[in-house]
Parts: sequence; structure tokens; C-alpha cells
Amino acid sequence: MASTANDTINEWLAKLNAALANNDSQQAAELFAPESYWRDFVSFTWNLKTMEGRKEIAEMLDATLESAKPANWTLEGDASEADGITEGWIKFETSTSRGEGHLRLNADGQAWTLLTTAYELKGHEEAKGSTRPKGVEHGLFQGRKTWLENKQQEEAELGYERQPYCVIIGGGQGGIGLGARLRRLGVPTIIVEKNPRPGDSWRNRYKSLCLHDPVWYDHMPYLPYPDHWPVFAPKDKIGDWLEMYTKVMELNYWSSTVCKKAEYDEASGEWTVEVERDGKTVELKPKQLVLATGMSAVPNIPDIPGMDSFKGDIHHSSKHPGGDKYAGKKVVVIGSNNSAHDICADLWENGADVTMVQRSSTHIARSETLMDLALGGLYSEQAVANGITTHKADMIFASLPYRILPGLQVPVYAAMKERDKDLYDRLEKAGFMLDFGEDDSGLFCKYLRRGSGYYIDVGASELIANGDIKLKTGQTECITETGVMLADGTEIPADVIVLATGYSSMNGWAAQLINQGVADKVGKVWGMGSDTTKDPGPWEGELRNMWKPTQQPGLWFHGGNLHQSRHYSSYLSLQLKARMENIPTPVYGLQEVHHTG
Amino acid sequence: MASTANDTINEWLAKLNAALANNDSQQAAELFAPESYWRDFVSFTWNLKTMEGRKEIAEMLDATLESAKPANWTLEGDASEADGITEGWIKFETSTSRGEGHLRLNADGQAWTLLTTAYELKGHEEAKGSTRPKGVEHGLFQGRKTWLENKQQEEAELGYERQPYCVIIGGGQGGIGLGARLRRLGVPTIIVEKNPRPGDSWRNRYKSLCLHDPVWYDHMPYLPYPDHWPVFAPKDKIGDWLEMYTKVMELNYWSSTVCKKAEYDEASGEWTVEVERDGKTVELKPKQLVLATGMSAVPNIPDIPGMDSFKGDIHHSSKHPGGDKYAGKKVVVIGSNNSAHDICADLWENGADVTMVQRSSTHIARSETLMDLALGGLYSEQAVANGITTHKADMIFASLPYRILPGLQVPVYAAMKERDKDLYDRLEKAGFMLDFGEDDSGLFCKYLRRGSGYYIDVGASELIANGDIKLKTGQTECITETGVMLADGTEIPADVIVLATGYSSMNGWAAQLINQGVADKVGKVWGMGSDTTKDPGPWEGELRNMWKPTQQPGLWFHGGNLHQSRHYSSYLSLQLKARMENIPTPVYGLQEVHHTG
Repeated sequence: MASTANDTINEWLAKLNAALANNDSQQAAELFAPESYWRDFVSFTWNLKTMEGRKEIAEMLDATLESAKPANWTLEGDASEADGITEGWIKFETSTSRGEGHLRLNADGQAWTLLTTAYELKGHEEAKGSTRPKGVEHGLFQGRKTWLENKQQEEAELGYERQPYCVIIGGGQGGIGLGARLRRLGVPTIIVEKNPRPGDSWRNRYKSLCLHDPVWYDHMPYLPYPDHWPVFAPKDKIGDWLEMYTKVMELNYWSSTVCKKAEYDEASGEWTVEVERDGKTVELKPKQLVLATGMSAVPNIPDIPGMDSFKGDIHHSSKHPGGDKYAGKKVVVIGSNNSAHDICADLWENGADVTMVQRSSTHIARSETLMDLALGGLYSEQAVANGITTHKADMIFASLPYRILPGLQVPVYAAMKERDKDLYDRLEKAGFMLDFGEDDSGLFCKYLRRGSGYYIDVGASELIANGDIKLKTGQTECITETGVMLADGTEIPADVIVLATGYSSMNGWAAQLINQGVADKVGKVWGMGSDTTKDPGPWEGELRNMWKPTQQPGLWFHGGNLHQSRHYSSYLSLQLKARMENIPTPVYGLQEVHHTG
Repeated sequence: MASTANDTINEWLAKLNAALANNDSQQAAELFAPESYWRDFVSFTWNLKTMEGRKEIAEMLDATLESAKPANWTLEGDASEADGITEGWIKFETSTSRGEGHLRLNADGQAWTLLTTAYELKGHEEAKGSTRPKGVEHGLFQGRKTWLENKQQEEAELGYERQPYCVIIGGGQGGIGLGARLRRLGVPTIIVEKNPRPGDSWRNRYKSLCLHDPVWYDHMPYLPYPDHWPVFAPKDKIGDWLEMYTKVMELNYWSSTVCKKAEYDEASGEWTVEVERDGKTVELKPKQLVLATGMSAVPNIPDIPGMDSFKGDIHHSSKHPGGDKYAGKKVVVIGSNNSAHDICADLWENGADVTMVQRSSTHIARSETLMDLALGGLYSEQAVANGITTHKADMIFASLPYRILPGLQVPVYAAMKERDKDLYDRLEKAGFMLDFGEDDSGLFCKYLRRGSGYYIDVGASELIANGDIKLKTGQTECITETGVMLADGTEIPADVIVLATGYSSMNGWAAQLINQGVADKVGKVWGMGSDTTKDPGPWEGELRNMWKPTQQPGLWFHGGNLHQSRHYSSYLSLQLKARMENIPTPVYGLQEVHHTG
């Protein structure tokens, strides 16, 4: 079976090799099915880009073949066949990089999906394994500097006597992981973080918080958690891990440092980034600026009439101190997504009288069920036992273009609806408005489209179903001196109001830091133009502005959950390294901007 | 081939199974060759013990079968055959533990070597992989404690309101690795360390120090170094790794804490360990006390006449501050082992005028050659590529009983002598006295027998050969006001004298901490009775007192290089855990004491 499948893939690759060697884009495109997808990360396009159908594929090849000079397409390991689809892992090269990817052929031997990704730049490979540094330089010479002396010198000089090539604003998991990749690639980088310690962005959140994604999904690059690491790590434990990770990966991490502003000089292609460190203003002059402030950088605070008149505490969920402060208090939480649920549960556990105000329908996915049905195949102990490494899982996931992803997800969430019917019935009976996404494609698609609209249930849904957390539905009309009034006239008395009202697009951070002009120029960040709530069309095919060139030269956005930060930081780091090394990086299909935020 | 080899091993295991099931020790012993070895770690003997020949094997089985109740001997993976020896990995069980091991059969189908090791206690398995903790407790309940609160409570209470089961004196790599294993096994443990930070025992050494063993040999338990880690890690980098390891493994690490004394109460089976922490005396009451102060805990300071009259600096190598203090000074280093060479090189690099005094012959092994010829098969990038994991390498190494190890090592060092002939010739020409061990068995055997007598050459030998480091040979007659005088009357002027004169047996630390009586009762630590220099007979078969029960109940010694600390900490931790859980641990063949230090 493997042998037939291998032959099928090998024959197709041979035809692709031949067409590309002839610079015959049309012939290459005809190897694809009429409905087909070529998803490319960096290797051909120096972009993250999905070409849909033969025409787009041919156009991309017309534009890139001359510089990419792809060659040496080979099957890696054994291919397999199931339900008429033959699939396999591939390797290939371009003029400047080595690539790996994944190919699916339909029953007619035409490509349905092709993923091509760059994993290293020729001549600029990471030093690892057999090419790792020696550490000690054997042989002896006078005046040698030790590792510690070199490290201390770098720490003293970088940002002062010599400039980093790259500055990352935001030292959470995203900035740290990208920083580690850049360190391994030898790109001088400073990470700017306002908190005193790496990991504080987790530590500072409400005290009962644990990761909602399981451990197999959450590894950082290069240094996986040991195998006793809990399935859902508590926030402070993740904080400690990030702190030690930053240290052992030897990142130039400027903690307790605030970025005041940034300005780009088009002529010199250089940023001036003003930061305050140790009470002094420091001007950094990097060529590349990465905003890794997180999807939760810019709180979305609704303008509810009467907010100023409220006599109790009112704060956005990002400022919520934890429930232990509010035992016995009446707390109203406005919102019904992850943070709202977590905060309600935490308040209830601490003996507050809690009311949730749900303004629109919410997707509830029980954590256990999500792990079983949605993640288990790729990210679980079973997957590990089946030989699906973290990297392989990331690549399998990436091999599914965003256009077809929702259709593949619908059956998963139909099964979830069935399995947890009892909970869903009881939630609806309690008045909770449920959805499974506009096209029933569930949680991950909602996350990709809008980064919100769901709760991964680790227990709070039960409290809502049984009334321990009170539920009101409707829009907020206004806030009074003593509580919240809904559009239907219901008044909910409150000592404390928590606005769990989410976050704005990350380019809002560019507006604050650089200026509104640049924020508008790069436009909305996240979402892929699915034409669903909070993700207006037109169709983009990839997440807007994430991990790829933007309309603002030298400005990049990095972030996402731990899985995305881990996987996509690889492509972002290669793009930055290539620019530092003056490798030509002709960007194909730079994203147009349709929405300013 | 594998299939024949598999049959051979399976047949032998079936016979062993049958004999043991019949409690027929004699029949079992006859499955072994007349010259044969059964090395057992914990599973049968609750000891580290090698039985040599049928008689000793039968005696051990007579004493242990009833309690051990071994069963389910099976071949793991494929066996192999080469040069008449058939070998394979095995698994088995006893009444209390699960075991793994290795078997070699000779051409007659008789066992030549058998290794049996316990890897987990039934009912007390480490929570890892599919049994890892959940982290968050799903579902909600009021008054829940977070991970951080539990951790802070444990830190506040352990050693004060409740007592640790185990106290480890010494928080270097050994104490830390053992602490991590005990943490995973749920044995409440405090590690007492005099330095302020984990890793300081490395940081405090002379600044040019790098590990002499390569990275593949040096992993800590559970959390391997990432694959960019240098081959020979600089001391401060290892220091940082140990610091973060201590933190993420959540060890109860009492830094800046000095152990003043310890006393054992035979009646209660409890230690009273007096430590000074934060300026206050704290009395710890553990059941088990582990000395992990390192083989380099008790400096061996020779009593050279005139030492007090010397007008310059004189210090033991363990107190050497690094060469940068001594530019332009005349320094005499007494000794010619690892530390002596490293310190001479460091001094020379810093512009000192250095003379080494060699008092007896020394084994020089070039690091590169050692890696190629001696370690490469088990600990190298190539070994990793061949599927030899760190654990597998440790087990292969352990499968060779100490009686036969020297014979297997002789050809390795003969090849080394050939390969590096040029260096050795030039060293001899410079007057350096060379050896390769008394039986030419080389470095590792010297290490096991006496822990000294060699230098892993990372460059200093070249400086001695070319005269950059001056060399004098002979005994030290006395120290004058201005230098060192040798027995032949040579006087060497010195501003500084470094006594690189090694360390005493680790029971010297027991003498300091507990009393001389206990030190004498447990006797010499390290060495195996090879009847060579510094390792007097009779033959012991295993290292004296290391990682196994001693004549002093509740007192254990832990240490060795990173490889040994990693591997043997597993057996020590199981012995401690079993005692905590009141699992019967009948010790077979408790070591007799022949030497007091």
C-alpha cells in the first residue's frame, strides 16, 4: 500500500520538478485539481500566502520561479492513501532556502492541497546537533574571553554602543519564543517588556487562571516541557517557565522597560524606538520592529452611558485583580467569553454574588470534549505515542488551507453537540444563548476569524446551568450609581462591574506607539475575511498582518496562542534573518488593506 | 538474524523464568557460564551489587527469591548476535517493582552478563505522560487553593511545621538531580546548600572552566539540554541551567544555608540536622540523610614543612580565584591532574609565569580523542542519530560489570596512545611522566578507582610540551619563604602556590558533620577494591558506599560526574521512596568496611 502511494506521490513530484525546471507555470498549475490550494510559507512568496485554484497558482509561479529556482522535490518517509486521497511529506529546495511540506493528491492524481514552507536559509542554518558550538575553544591563547564575559559585554553594549537589528515590543510568550529563534539565528535582538520579570504577563492575571489549551499544544520552541508537566498548567507555573526559558536561551530581555514611541525613517530604513529603562530614556535604532504585545494588548472598553457615575469598582477584565478581594460583594460581569466565564467562576469560588450579562450568543466547548474530538489526533499523549511530534502536528494543521478548514471542522462540533447535549440543554434552559459559529465550524475557526466568541468550559458552564452564577441576557442600556441597567429595563445591583468586553485589533497598538497613520496603513490585524461577525470580507486566505510583511516596511506583528507563536515564529524569524543577511526577499502578493481596524 | 537471536534470548529467559518460579536457585545459576556476572541495581538486592560466578548468583537468589518473587521476564525489541555473543534488552517484575535490564549469552547459550535494575515501584509510579497531573482541577468549588498558594504554603511549612522525609546536604548537580527525582516520586525533601544560588558551586570555580565531558554525557534527569547546547558547556552556563532547573522542578532548595551538624537517633530512626538559615538555627528531623557534597568536598591539603612561613599567597585548588589576579606573578602549581592543568592554563592565559610540579605519573587523554574513541559510541551526536538515547547509553554502560570493564578499555587506550603519539612523545621529551593506568585501562577506570590521576586535555598539554608552562618533577621537600623546594634540592621561586592536591574520601564530610565514629563505621567512599594506587583491595565489585545502603542506617552518599549523578540518582531515589512507603527493603550483601578513609 505504502509502495503504491509512494509511487503516486513520486510521479507527481517528478512532473512538478520537470514543469518548474522548464519555468512552465501553466504546466505546473495543471498538475493541480480545479479546486486546489497551494499554501506557501516564505519559500516561494517571502510571505504567508494561499493560492487557490490553477490561475492563482500559475500567477504565483510566474512571479516567483525565476528567483526561487525550486528543485529537488522528494518524498520524505512513506506516503499513505485513504478515501481516495494520497498524501505524503515532502522536501524541496529553493535558491535560498531548504523547505519541507505536505502534499495531498485526489483520486485522479491531481494535487488538492500543497503546503510549502521554508525551514532554513542556506548558509545561515541554526547551529544545532552536530553543528552546535564547541563551548570551550580548545587550545589556549592569552587574553581569551569567557562565555560569561562575552555575555556581560553583550548585555552592556547592545542598545547602547551597538544597535540591535530587531526590537520586539512585548516580552510575553510570543516575544520570548521569537527572541529564542532569533538568538539561534544570530539576529541581535532586544525584547522590551514593561513588567519586571519574564512571565509576569501570566503572573499578573487573576489567580485561578490555568491554560485552556493542553500541554502538548503549548510547548515553546526548542525546549519542550518535561513529561510531568500538567495538562493545563497554572499561570504562575508558566510564568516561572518563561522566566527560566528567557535566561537559558540567553535573550536580551529588557524588563521593567516601557516603549514610549517609535518612528520609521523611510530613507534609512531604520526605526527610532524610544524606551524608558532604569529611569533613563534610551533610543534604539533597529531595522525591524516586531509588535508582540498580544491579541489582548488593547482593551476594548465600551462607552456605556453613566459609567462615570457608578459608585463601586469598575474595571476591564484585563485589570481584574482576582476574586478574593470581592467575597460577599455583588459583582456584575459584562460579557460571556472566556475571560468573563473565568472571572465569574473565580468570583463565585471566592464567595461573591455574581451575575453574568450575556449580550450575544456564545460558543461553549467543554475542555475535555475539545481535547478528545478536536485536538486529540494531533496534540495528546496518544498522538505522541503515535509518533506525531509537536512539529509534525503543527505541520499537519498547517497543511489544511483556511478555505477548507471550516468544512472539516463542522462534523467535529456536530459530535460535540451530541456528546454534551445534556449540558447544552441545561444551559439553554437557564437562558444562555448558544452558538457553534455562524457555519457551525466551532471554536478554532471562531478564534481565527475574530479571536473571541467562545468559552472553553472548565467548569463555569455548570455554575451557569445550575444558577450559582446568575445570568441575564440583553444589551446594557446604561450604568447607574448602583448597578447595570439592561435595554429591557432590568436593573442589576452591583458593588463591582467587570467589563469582560474583549480587545481591539492589534494595530491599535501601532496607533498608540507609532501613529494613527501607520495603524491605518497596515490596517486590521487578525481574521481572514470570512465575512462572518467581526471578520468582514473580502476573503484574504491567511490571517491579516500576522507573521508576514505588512504595508509598513520594517513593521511586523507576532502573537497568537502558544501553538501559533511557536510555529509561526519560525517563519517570521527566517524573514527577519534573510533581511539582515541581505538575501533577496521579493514579497509576492503583499496583503492589501480593506479595513483600518 | 534478529529472529534467531530473539529465539536464543527467549529460550534462556523461559528457562530462567521456570527455575525462579520453582525457587530453584541452583538451576537458575547453572544457566550462567562459569565466568559470569549478574549485576543488580535494587530489584533483587535492594543494593547495588554484582554477583560473580554461579556460586554467588545462587547465594543471592537463595536469599532474595522469596521476597523478590521475580516474574514475567521478556525480551524488549530485537536481540542481536555478534562474535558469538547474543545480547538483548529485557523487562521483568518483582513483587514490588518493575525492572529492565540487559542480557549477554555466550556461544553455548549460557549467560555471561546479566544486568537487572528496578525502574519503578509498583503503586508508586512517577506521574508522567498519560498519568501526568491535570494542573487545573476542572469543575469549581469554593475555597480552592491555587498552585502558587500550595507552593508557597509548602515552602513556608516544610522544615518548620512539618518535617521532610529526606534532607540532602549539598545543592550541586548531584543534590539537584536527586531532588528532582524525589520530587517526582513525592518524597518531601529539603536540599541544603551553603551558596546563595543553585549553580554557584560551578560559578565559584575559576573563570575559564568548561565541562570536560561532552553535552550528551551531561544531561540532567527529565529535562535534556536543547540541541544548540555547546559540546563543552562553560561553568556559568551550567550554573544558570541548574538554577532554572531547580526552579522549574520546584525543589525545596534552601540556599545560603549551612549545615552545622547531624546526629542519628537509632531508636527513632531519625536524624537531627542542625542548619543555619537566614541567621537562625533550624532543626530538621528527616528519616534519611543524603550527603551530596561532591567528590570534591574535602580538600586534601598536604602537610608540607614550611607552609606557614611562605610570604606569598598559598591556597588549595578549590579556593583558586582564577588567573586574572596573577598577571606577571610567579605561580607554582603543585599537582598534575585535571585541576592542576586547568589552573596552569588559566594562569598562563592571564600572563602569569607558571610552573607545574608533577609528583607522580599522570594519564593524559586528549578530549577529542576521548570523545571519538571512548565515549562516541554511546554519547555523541552519532549515537543520538543511531537511536541510542541517554538512558539507553547509561544502561549499556551499566551492563558491563566492573570486573571486566578494564579489559574492555585497554584496546581503547592503546588506540589513543597510537593516535596521539606525537603529543605523548613531546610531553615525555619535556619531562612529563605519563601513564595510562596501572593496567593500561585508561581514564574511566582511574576515575572509578580513585577519582583522580588524569587530565582530559583541552590544550594545557601543548603548553607543557612547548615549555610555556614550565615543568618540574619530584616530591616537594618543603616550602620556603619565597618558593617551593623539591627533594632534589631544586628551588622554585613563587609569589603564589596553588595546592592542586586533590580531595579526600567523602566520608571525611561525615566526620565533620556527624562524627568520626560514623565516618569510620561507613568507611571509605568511592573505589571498588581494585588493588591499584589509592584503591586498596579486597575486591568490592561496586563503588564503595555510593547510592546504596551504608553501615550507618539512614545515611547515603550521592555524587559523581553528571552521567553518574543522573543515572544512579534513579536507584537512590527508589530506595528512599520504598523506605518512605514502608515497602520491605531487605538489603542483600550490605558492604563490609575494610578501610576507614
